[in-house]
Amino acid sequence: MIRFFNHLRHFLILGVYFLFSGGSFAQTDKQTEEKINHIINQLTLEEKVALCHAQSKFSVPGVGRLGIPEIWMSDGPHGVRAEISWDSWDYAGWTNDSITAFPALTCLAASFNPEIAKDYGKAVGEEALYRKKDILLGPGVNIYRTPLNGRNFEYMGEDPVLSSTLVVPYIQGLQSNGVAACLKHFVANNQEHQRMSVDVEMPERALREIYLPAFKAAVQEANVWSIMSAYNQFRGQYCSHNEYLVNDILKGEWGFDGALITDWGAAHDSKQAALYGLDIEMGTGTNGFTYSAKDHYENYYLAGAFKELLKKGEVPEEVLDDKVRRVLRLMYRTSMNKERGYGSINTKSHHEVARKIGQEGIVLLQNEDNFFPLDPNTSLHIAVIGDNATRMMTKGGGSSELKPEFEVSPLQGLQERFTNANITYARGYSAGPPVYEQIIPTTLDQDSLKRAAIDLAKQADIVLFIGGLNKNHQQDCEGGDRLSYKLPYHQEELIDAISKVNKNTGVVIISGNAVETEWSSNVKGILQGWYLGSETGHALSDIISGDVNPSGKLPFTFPVKLKDNPAHHYDQLSYPGDGTTVNYKEGILVGYRWHDTKKITPKYAFGYGLSYTKFDINSISINKKSFQKEEEIKVTCSLTNIGETTGSEVVQVYVGKPKSKVERALKELKSFQKVSVNKGETKELTLSINAQDLKYYDTNQKAWVLEEGEYYIYVGNASNNITKRMKVTITDKIN
Amino acid sequence: MIRFFNHLRHFLILGVYFLFSGGSFAQTDKQTEEKINHIINQLTLEEKVALCHAQSKFSVPGVGRLGIPEIWMSDGPHGVRAEISWDSWDYAGWTNDSITAFPALTCLAASFNPEIAKDYGKAVGEEALYRKKDILLGPGVNIYRTPLNGRNFEYMGEDPVLSSTLVVPYIQGLQSNGVAACLKHFVANNQEHQRMSVDVEMPERALREIYLPAFKAAVQEANVWSIMSAYNQFRGQYCSHNEYLVNDILKGEWGFDGALITDWGAAHDSKQAALYGLDIEMGTGTNGFTYSAKDHYENYYLAGAFKELLKKGEVPEEVLDDKVRRVLRLMYRTSMNKERGYGSINTKSHHEVARKIGQEGIVLLQNEDNFFPLDPNTSLHIAVIGDNATRMMTKGGGSSELKPEFEVSPLQGLQERFTNANITYARGYSAGPPVYEQIIPTTLDQDSLKRAAIDLAKQADIVLFIGGLNKNHQQDCEGGDRLSYKLPYHQEELIDAISKVNKNTGVVIISGNAVETEWSSNVKGILQGWYLGSETGHALSDIISGDVNPSGKLPFTFPVKLKDNPAHHYDQLSYPGDGTTVNYKEGILVGYRWHDTKKITPKYAFGYGLSYTKFDINSISINKKSFQKEEEIKVTCSLTNIGETTGSEVVQVYVGKPKSKVERALKELKSFQKVSVNKGETKELTLSINAQDLKYYDTNQKAWVLEEGEYYIYVGNASNNITKRMKVTITDKIN
Repeated sequence: MIRFFNHLRHFLILGVYFLFSGGSFAQTDKQTEEKINHIINQLTLEEKVALCHAQSKFSVPGVGRLGIPEIWMSDGPHGVRAEISWDSWDYAGWTNDSITAFPALTCLAASFNPEIAKDYGKAVGEEALYRKKDILLGPGVNIYRTPLNGRNFEYMGEDPVLSSTLVVPYIQGLQSNGVAACLKHFVANNQEHQRMSVDVEMPERALREIYLPAFKAAVQEANVWSIMSAYNQFRGQYCSHNEYLVNDILKGEWGFDGALITDWGAAHDSKQAALYGLDIEMGTGTNGFTYSAKDHYENYYLAGAFKELLKKGEVPEEVLDDKVRRVLRLMYRTSMNKERGYGSINTKSHHEVARKIGQEGIVLLQNEDNFFPLDPNTSLHIAVIGDNATRMMTKGGGSSELKPEFEVSPLQGLQERFTNANITYARGYSAGPPVYEQIIPTTLDQDSLKRAAIDLAKQADIVLFIGGLNKNHQQDCEGGDRLSYKLPYHQEELIDAISKVNKNTGVVIISGNAVETEWSSNVKGILQGWYLGSETGHALSDIISGDVNPSGKLPFTFPVKLKDNPAHHYDQLSYPGDGTTVNYKEGILVGYRWHDTKKITPKYAFGYGLSYTKFDINSISINKKSFQKEEEIKVTCSLTNIGETTGSEVVQVYVGKPKSKVERALKELKSFQKVSVNKGETKELTLSINAQDLKYYDTNQKAWVLEEGEYYIYVGNASNNITKRMKVTITDKIN
Repeated sequence: MIRFFNHLRHFLILGVYFLFSGGSFAQTDKQTEEKINHIINQLTLEEKVALCHAQSKFSVPGVGRLGIPEIWMSDGPHGVRAEISWDSWDYAGWTNDSITAFPALTCLAASFNPEIAKDYGKAVGEEALYRKKDILLGPGVNIYRTPLNGRNFEYMGEDPVLSSTLVVPYIQGLQSNGVAACLKHFVANNQEHQRMSVDVEMPERALREIYLPAFKAAVQEANVWSIMSAYNQFRGQYCSHNEYLVNDILKGEWGFDGALITDWGAAHDSKQAALYGLDIEMGTGTNGFTYSAKDHYENYYLAGAFKELLKKGEVPEEVLDDKVRRVLRLMYRTSMNKERGYGSINTKSHHEVARKIGQEGIVLLQNEDNFFPLDPNTSLHIAVIGDNATRMMTKGGGSSELKPEFEVSPLQGLQERFTNANITYARGYSAGPPVYEQIIPTTLDQDSLKRAAIDLAKQADIVLFIGGLNKNHQQDCEGGDRLSYKLPYHQEELIDAISKVNKNTGVVIISGNAVETEWSSNVKGILQGWYLGSETGHALSDIISGDVNPSGKLPFTFPVKLKDNPAHHYDQLSYPGDGTTVNYKEGILVGYRWHDTKKITPKYAFGYGLSYTKFDINSISINKKSFQKEEEIKVTCSLTNIGETTGSEVVQVYVGKPKSKVERALKELKSFQKVSVNKGETKELTLSINAQDLKYYDTNQKAWVLEEGEYYIYVGNASNNITKRMKVTITDKIN
């Protein structure tokens, strides 16, 4: 309890700072804070408690008698979900809730383009506002730890700098509409397997250097207005009321002044929820309870039982007031934001944003004999094979499921663009009936599907195999993890069989995760196609036809085999856990940090992605050799397009410390820049790194420490394709 | 078609007038009209047509891609109805939709107080806004023609001046929130029997002088933003697309610039709906259709078939544009109103408004031996008898049904106020299970209920019989008319039996209609208690205890027997019609006009209502004897409270023309004023009548004509209690 009051004092000091500093992350002004206090003084205990929990599946009550409106939420982050019923998970059956489905956040991450992240946030926020939502539940920035995590497609990859750089403009764009982002899932929710209970253990440096930075950037740079807690436990306490994560770090160290909202059903204890920083409880026990709706919500941890604790004095009313203050602040920023417009939905501009993100995020992984692009005027026979060529991927996958106004399938996109070609289609394999099909089809015979596909491949001039994962349970789907790193439904055998009868075969992988690609040498081209939403078929055929030159870079590593991934290097306790606990034994060495440091060659490396043109990074230099601790390290270089077509390249700057007091990754991404360069053109680039960004987290001092001495600066266009390595020194001495 | 284009030209001229005149009923400025035209130019035919009909039970689509929000509606007019499902009449099962139930509009009419009409509109509008509604479907101003009309409780009585005077501030108060009123039901919907088809015939003067004035005042004085068409036909054409009523009068003569919305399912023909002024079609065929939701709305008269007419050129696109312009204007006033706040709900102030309206509207009809008020400190045994003492009257009644946060029953109100009394209760009779009771009670034995009540009455010092009508079908309920003028469920026999065993009996009539009161001489006191909403029991006990002095006046006549009512004087064709047609044979002689003119003494007259004090109207005079046609006739008088308690009186000024070229009522209400006067105090009043208001409608000239000559000015406190009659002359000559 004493600990809590220390926090309260801390909040108070922070509060005063917010009020008078005009600091950029204050966002609410003195007048608003005074209004909020004035409101709190008028509220009854019951009204205040009611503001701390749901009144329905996706809303929190207001205070009607004082004219304080409700808060309405919708699942995100790839679009605004269809209307859900008041008190069940059934869809409400409305017909005005068809929206634009944007590409999955993995695709956004692969774009390496913060400008389109802002466009994404702004567009999806406009749609949320039109749908009268005050909070969009997203984006997600849980770090990609294992390719088996069923929910990786909703996140932004394995690197904290990449995800921080993209999440900030996404949130800024979204919140510019007066619609709150709800950043999720705070924190250490890196697998779906046993997510409701698993207790995550990890070294403090992994927490601070890998898993938290994107959340911190969202709080301090994007002023995110709400954050969603993770289902899992962290060091023995549920994340919805985790004293260390919420009180100490989020609201203490970082000064987060918004509301912490549970994931749906993620609260577990009234007293902990009260004292350890949970502000709004949603979704508790809504499956299986037999209470009437009204009674039901009274049984929430932050409802009746919370009231009792307050009445008995076991929780001081200041604790409640702090929560209510945060909820009201959220309301002033959203539902009571007088500057809000009305939003818009399914606009031409939103469709363009969705297509553009797809174009920029698709990654060309392999391109033997310049298989891609295919000539859009070709009259050849193109056999399109694979279940994913026609499957609607906005359906399924869990809470991110969408009801788009339209979804252009890959096959449709190709048919539209390759009008002179003879395009044929064979499903090739069955992934079961799509979840959106109301009828159960007759059992599909995998053998006959396979035979038909091989027959078709024989006749064709070109084969495009469009497979990968899908949104079914234990694929790319919330609530479960993949069971295998391999492609499911015997796709590998099918690809091998097809490539034997047709040497002119390319593969499009539709997935939100890395997959095993042992079969890659049998095919000519490979595109990583993600989940692209409404404009899927258009964005894909833009790349396949060469209308757009691919520029996406992998936001996570494709290991050769699962065991090469650090989460799978150790024992079961490291993944998927022993049934109770999972221990992140790899520590800070996540993703390419592991591969680089342990010298385990990946199949496709972080930051990697080909183009239809060639780039040359040259004239690389650094402004100085020695830097003081507050200085900017400025890396300059020239980027020349030495190929035949216009294209974009992502220049990446990594930093490593060869001799260190502490464990270090060989190198870490610190800056990147995406640049479009015309054929034959050269552009000059400057990428800046603040020396402060080279700090590591010192567990003993509980502080970020900048070690002096020599560092390597790496410049390249992929984590495994470094053009130049340079040495700099960080020092406290005057040069 | 030529006729239509004439109208279009007329609209255009009016439109230009609106834009440049700054006229008070223009309301939308030039910039807004330009924005609207700009939007129309961007819309596809499909988008424009979609704006002209429902997308769900209670909403109209916006244009998402242009950021134009939807329009959401709720039934009124006594409060905001609970949420209805997207595409069925089932309640949606939300728990945030409990509201304040305000007294029925008959009670508001009985208050004779335009100030509280404004408070009513403002308060209910705040609740609608909080509930995110853009249109509240109300108020209703259909003239009270027969006490059998099941829906009279939703209207404002039998007099056009009274209803005009009250509807204007109600609408102004409501629309001050940025929530549109939808004035209903336009027009001649004066019975529920066969309302879906009945063809109403009436003389032109009755239409102009009796049935239309409140609508006209709402359009020209209150700038009402939308109007709901009646279900019935008028002179052979449905009111939703009645060329004369809508094109000629409403949009032509009156210059209505808002949207005409159907009652739910009141459209019948695409071409007529297109050409005769229907703007928004709601509720068509939503019972019994088997289409999927989307297809279903395409089958509306102003949907697919309308599109076909437009494409074939049978309806010019200008017609569509005129509708869309009205819908967009409605949006700019409501859903796109940037000045709107968030509203509020269940506020203390709303409860106070509801209670105040009840206090001012309850009418003291009879008070032998000063039966009322009962001493609130009495320790006597008060037997409360009657089903209506405990029945929730916000339930049932049709679309005006409400889900109030609370409803204080008459019995509860008495128990709360008369804390020293021994209050007992007997139901006395059964009106069947209340519609809100989920369980079917065991059959109630009327005889045993009656015996128990009589036994109780014998033992009591005082009996309060609380009966009347209720909200069941064929009582005060939409969709059917009453079958008898008498009290239902054998209440008359029960009252007689009770009054035989207890001479100290008072009656509270809960109803929205006049009832036969043959039994009146057997009881001492009679209160007309209306339907009073959330605060029913409080407002009633305020009057019964004498905390508040009654000041309500009847807004319609209680005839002695049904045959005395003009609609029932003639044959079946006059009421309820011959199955096809109803003919208003009484013409302009509705209500007290009939009784006065035909010298048929009513039981309780229009404008009548007692007080616990006595008033003296004296020093009555008129500023001149002769008036020119543009002059104000100023009636002055003194009002003295000569009784023992403070109270309010309604001074009423009627005008008659003894010798006229045309049929005239003996007298017609032209002005009234409600004044609170302390005991012993005198107040000076001035009531003004513009000579223009003495016009009659000349059917031949199709114009309002002010006849010269002598008129009588009557001043009194009821239509049958005139203190003084004075003569004035209207002349064209200079005096």
